[in-house]
Amino acid sequence: MAAARERATGHRQRFDRSFEAYFDTLPERLDTPPLSRFTPRCLELLRDLSLRGGKRLRVALLHEAARLVTTDPVPGLTEAALSIELLQTHGLVHDDIIDDAPLRRGGPSTYYAYRGEFPAADRTALGLAVLAGDLAAFLSIRVLLEADAPAELRQAMLEVQLDAGAETVAGQIIDLERDLRPVPDEEFLHTVCEYKSTRYSVLAPLRLGLLAAGEDIAAHDAALRRYAIPVGIGGQLRDDYLDLFGDEDSTGKSTSADLRAGRRSYAVSALLAAADEEQRAVVESALGDPHCPAATVERIRELARRLGVDRKLRADMRRCAETAAAEAATWRPHWREEAVAFFEGLPLANAVRPSSP
Amino acid sequence: MAAARERATGHRQRFDRSFEAYFDTLPERLDTPPLSRFTPRCLELLRDLSLRGGKRLRVALLHEAARLVTTDPVPGLTEAALSIELLQTHGLVHDDIIDDAPLRRGGPSTYYAYRGEFPAADRTALGLAVLAGDLAAFLSIRVLLEADAPAELRQAMLEVQLDAGAETVAGQIIDLERDLRPVPDEEFLHTVCEYKSTRYSVLAPLRLGLLAAGEDIAAHDAALRRYAIPVGIGGQLRDDYLDLFGDEDSTGKSTSADLRAGRRSYAVSALLAAADEEQRAVVESALGDPHCPAATVERIRELARRLGVDRKLRADMRRCAETAAAEAATWRPHWREEAVAFFEGLPLANAVRPSSP
Repeated sequence: MAAARERATGHRQRFDRSFEAYFDTLPERLDTPPLSRFTPRCLELLRDLSLRGGKRLRVALLHEAARLVTTDPVPGLTEAALSIELLQTHGLVHDDIIDDAPLRRGGPSTYYAYRGEFPAADRTALGLAVLAGDLAAFLSIRVLLEADAPAELRQAMLEVQLDAGAETVAGQIIDLERDLRPVPDEEFLHTVCEYKSTRYSVLAPLRLGLLAAGEDIAAHDAALRRYAIPVGIGGQLRDDYLDLFGDEDSTGKSTSADLRAGRRSYAVSALLAAADEEQRAVVESALGDPHCPAATVERIRELARRLGVDRKLRADMRRCAETAAAEAATWRPHWREEAVAFFEGLPLANAVRPSSP
Repeated sequence: MAAARERATGHRQRFDRSFEAYFDTLPERLDTPPLSRFTPRCLELLRDLSLRGGKRLRVALLHEAARLVTTDPVPGLTEAALSIELLQTHGLVHDDIIDDAPLRRGGPSTYYAYRGEFPAADRTALGLAVLAGDLAAFLSIRVLLEADAPAELRQAMLEVQLDAGAETVAGQIIDLERDLRPVPDEEFLHTVCEYKSTRYSVLAPLRLGLLAAGEDIAAHDAALRRYAIPVGIGGQLRDDYLDLFGDEDSTGKSTSADLRAGRRSYAVSALLAAADEEQRAVVESALGDPHCPAATVERIRELARRLGVDRKLRADMRRCAETAAAEAATWRPHWREEAVAFFEGLPLANAVRPSSP
């Protein structure tokens, strides 16, 4: 587990340098209007948000997927990593508009950065944030065309990322749909999770890495999905857990945002399911109220602990991690040991342990 | 001129059938979450807006660009046309959020359609509209991968459309920037127009058509730009003219929207430049006031006519059309006569004549 975390750190550090270099040269490679002050500012905000990126697990999954096959340098991986993280930037910028979220990755969301710059013109701020997210989407696909790889491979990678982009949008759409259901069942939550995050965050990086390394990904599709689905659910459980039980310093965004925004996250749904009628009324009074007082949120957090929601989520996370690790273990006969060990160790390294916040 | 319009109509009719077929089969080709009602609704709204499309001049430019070279069937043109119009749909959906515009193409904008469906949840409506626009963007690029054409051609077309997408975003950004300048000069307006509309609406279709027909587009870049720039400015002049002097029935959107939204369009800028101090104060009092009474708008329209703004815009349009036609005429020696004649006739057919509204 420690080894998996260390390898992920190495991938992150190398990637962060190449991401910085990408943004350094972007103005030269992008034809933007002369005399504009707003366009460079947009690129700057995209750069800030992108480089403030967290653990870069997607990038680690990508590189390790290639290493399942080979330790040789694999052309196209750098551009695939840039594409993955630019698609993430696109999603974050638009997500923070949709959620009206002020904070992201320990800094202002792009929307709120613009709101700060145009305090009297919220429509301009909204417009610029929508456009910044759009630009990131086009850039995330465009960077794949720069891959020094055979045309067929570039197209296969484009297909993976365009599907991931479209499917993630569908996932964000049902994410909004979820919140209009009183208590969504677990199957629905799993579907939201798969489309909204697993496909672009786990499945696409695995596919891109294997593709670049020359594997026939269709032949491995079922195995990749058996691994990706529990990893995706585990990651979402972790996010939802930290939103309710974590603190702002460690998450880099406002906590209890799910509750205040009325999001039926795994944590909120588990709490609603465990609560009796009276307790549920308390939770529902806070749900979707952006001005809900901190004391009420604290009471709900306490209630959730009392009802064992934190323990249930940690147990669910653990189960997901074990399922994914067991799948990775079956890859031993046909793929390289050190990378298999990485995929086996990663989910367990990322589950929240009882001692964690 | 009449011949050019007739040919454009033929392209539109054939395209509209293939656009409908595209949307008919889209649900099968797109992996969307089961049990979701919101995802099919999103596709339906994209379909409605897309099929309500106007003259499809972009599609005509695309097909005629290929016919500059050959009358043989050209693989890839159908997908290029779909890509062009899906990119347009993407732009319209997001534009109408940015402009808070209720009407588009004679029906509700996607944002307002959602607002009607979620009267008590404007944030849900906004989110769904942002996501609908995002989906159209990914689809517009993805459809090019389906082109039955050599891999190199598909990639060249992808490059054209991804650049067009990114540059259009930059254009929309300076469009917002323009409106914070008191009276932007003509050069700035031309820059806005080029990035915001000419590149994806004129230049990209020409490039895609020639590419598909096997031409080396780099060799013709200067000629294409000499044609595209005045056509683009002419088209924008026409839009801005109709916004101030036209009526809702013929434009399919709210008129005087530019004035009410504070947009320094060609028409508004020309009016501000022609007005004396007192008149300018009247215009500025209405500029950017969404609730400006109809009577005030009517007074400003009358003032604009009195100051000859309508005549000036028509003369500018005419000049743009003539410049573009003269450029097309120089294409005779190396390109096919009937298509050259189309490009020569089209700009003149589209300029607003004194008898027009």
